[in-house]
Amino acid sequence: MEAHEELEGEVVDLRDWPLPIFGENFGTLGDIADPTYSTPLVKAWNNKLAEADGYSVLTPEYNHSVPGVLKNAIDSAWLSFALRNKPLATVAYSVGIAAGARAVEHLTAIAVEAEMVPLRNTVLIPFVGHAFTDDAAPASEKTDEALTIALDDLAWWVRTLAKGRADGELPPAPFRRAS
Amino acid sequence: MEAHEELEGEVVDLRDWPLPIFGENFGTLGDIADPTYSTPLVKAWNNKLAEADGYSVLTPEYNHSVPGVLKNAIDSAWLSFALRNKPLATVAYSVGIAAGARAVEHLTAIAVEAEMVPLRNTVLIPFVGHAFTDDAAPASEKTDEALTIALDDLAWWVRTLAKGRADGELPPAPFRRAS
Amino acid sequence: MEAHEELEGEVVDLRDWPLPIFGENFGTLGDIADPTYSTPLVKAWNNKLAEADGYSVLTPEYNHSVPGVLKNAIDSAWLSFALRNKPLATVAYSVGIAAGARAVEHLTAIAVEAEMVPLRNTVLIPFVGHAFTDDAAPASEKTDEALTIALDDLAWWVRTLAKGRADGELPPAPFRRAS
Amino acid sequence: MEAHEELEGEVVDLRDWPLPIFGENFGTLGDIADPTYSTPLVKAWNNKLAEADGYSVLTPEYNHSVPGVLKNAIDSAWLSFALRNKPLATVAYSVGIAAGARAVEHLTAIAVEAEMVPLRNTVLIPFVGHAFTDDAAPASEKTDEALTIALDDLAWWVRTLAKGRADGELPPAPFRRAS
Repeated sequence: MEAHEELEGEVVDLRDWPLPIFGENFGTLGDIADPTYSTPLVKAWNNKLAEADGYSVLTPEYNHSVPGVLKNAIDSAWLSFALRNKPLATVAYSVGIAAGARAVEHLTAIAVEAEMVPLRNTVLIPFVGHAFTDDAAPASEKTDEALTIALDDLAWWVRTLAKGRADGELPPAPFRRAS
Repeated sequence: MEAHEELEGEVVDLRDWPLPIFGENFGTLGDIADPTYSTPLVKAWNNKLAEADGYSVLTPEYNHSVPGVLKNAIDSAWLSFALRNKPLATVAYSVGIAAGARAVEHLTAIAVEAEMVPLRNTVLIPFVGHAFTDDAAPASEKTDEALTIALDDLAWWVRTLAKGRADGELPPAPFRRAS
Repeated sequence: MEAHEELEGEVVDLRDWPLPIFGENFGTLGDIADPTYSTPLVKAWNNKLAEADGYSVLTPEYNHSVPGVLKNAIDSAWLSFALRNKPLATVAYSVGIAAGARAVEHLTAIAVEAEMVPLRNTVLIPFVGHAFTDDAAPASEKTDEALTIALDDLAWWVRTLAKGRADGELPPAPFRRAS
Repeated sequence: MEAHEELEGEVVDLRDWPLPIFGENFGTLGDIADPTYSTPLVKAWNNKLAEADGYSVLTPEYNHSVPGVLKNAIDSAWLSFALRNKPLATVAYSVGIAAGARAVEHLTAIAVEAEMVPLRNTVLIPFVGHAFTDDAAPASEKTDEALTIALDDLAWWVRTLAKGRADGELPPAPFRRAS
């Protein structure tokens, strides 16, 4: 991810996070105020996600959706509310003409459940086999332009929602239910 | 819609807005800084939407999606950016068990393109034929509870995003593109 | 639509079918064995759809979905089961990079409820403003190739499902429910 | 899964199939006419799927979609075309009111890419914590009824598509493209 003057980032590669297949439940959760989960890695993963004020996900499209490993990683952010009230800018690619657009749609639905704000302006890369030069630069100016727009938006939302959270958040819905 | 202490609302019924089938284009738009569209009704519709700081949509589910008339109304909010950076709380219902959940998912995808923030907490009403008492009150306490949660969230987002917009917005993406 | 040796088609343009906003109910339906609906046009529309053994829909993508007018037309095919057990091949386009792929996904969900078979191989056309030559021919060979594949598939499914229907269909689910 | 007179089934539990995170490529595929993949387990999985004439998937809904492990299992059915031209009946459940309906929608999109026929009639189970009796029987008659309808449909489609495949299939699209 290229630099953006207002954003400071850390690359998190799911290959470095061999999360178990999601199977947490209220028995493995531990204390909901500071969950321990079934393994320390799941806890570390939730902590890692909680550090950020916003997210940019880079994903391929497999079978009109996100890869299972990405879905599993998001499912593993369970009841820590680490992603809540934070924005998401997506960069997606596919080997064909659909440009990862269908993976973005599924990620949008998933993100809303996690109370993220999935942003309109995404980076869509079709025919990924031909999308980069030998120097790993985007072959199309449109890709660069889309990335600039997406990151500028991400910065606005990071700022706006950090203020909103600082002004006080509502408890997550499960804590507002009688039953 | 029941009262919420922080929210002041106006009910807009699409039956009162006989919008034409969407067919606007750059020829009918007029001045993009103050579009006139193909008919004054489309302009009035965009103006009406622009007045609000947030939205609550009440919709049935037809064929796993929103009704055509609702989609047409959202499509008619074209290039006025009336809905941009504003939250959306959805109340959906269906005659069957799916509770309008699939209409919400489609509306989520549509809303993101309009740069709305579709909120996680919705009101889902299954078996709508049995969902209300003879006095038009929700038959299930869950419905009331879900509505309270959704409106509290809507109020938080209205406040947070009004501040964000007041602090300055980025131009919409079309104005940030070279081409 | 270009010719396919095995398929005989009729172009149905929604501009020629000024269907009312869908608002049918059991009161307007008439006899469910031969519905009359609220107006003869809705009945004619259901009859027109029933004539075909398969469908190819050509649609733009508006706000990540199908246009309201297309959704309304499909919703108007109500309880006639005209589309049931028949295949659907979709051609979609958009002004941007997403190539109509998101409209196809929504149409897929909608089609499944109507008991159509939405086919995998579609024709996706990005940047539609540049997608055709002055002679109205596709500017990209990929478009032609995709159309050939989609129509060949459609022909296979028309044949396969016509046989299946001729061998005897199950009653639609509403007629198989006790309640 | 309860018995259906026309269907003979085998329960495949993903917990018994510790598939690697999908990362196959043309280098690991081996001979496309008889792929060997990166490990024998992936080959065995593709062979197992190929044995069936239709599928019934039982899935929870996590974050408005299918679990990562299910997505990974479907992605692992890669270029063997094991699922092609076969029907899919889905049973979904969730802890809340949405009844798994959103998982079904994502599975529908995924299934279409695999050239399955996702069937309209599904079994949706809301509030799964209260959906079964102590004897593991469905607490609601609607669940039983929906299962009967779904399996009857599955049987019709298994029959119809087995005939269609026996009469001759088209090659998958990748083999029909010049490029």
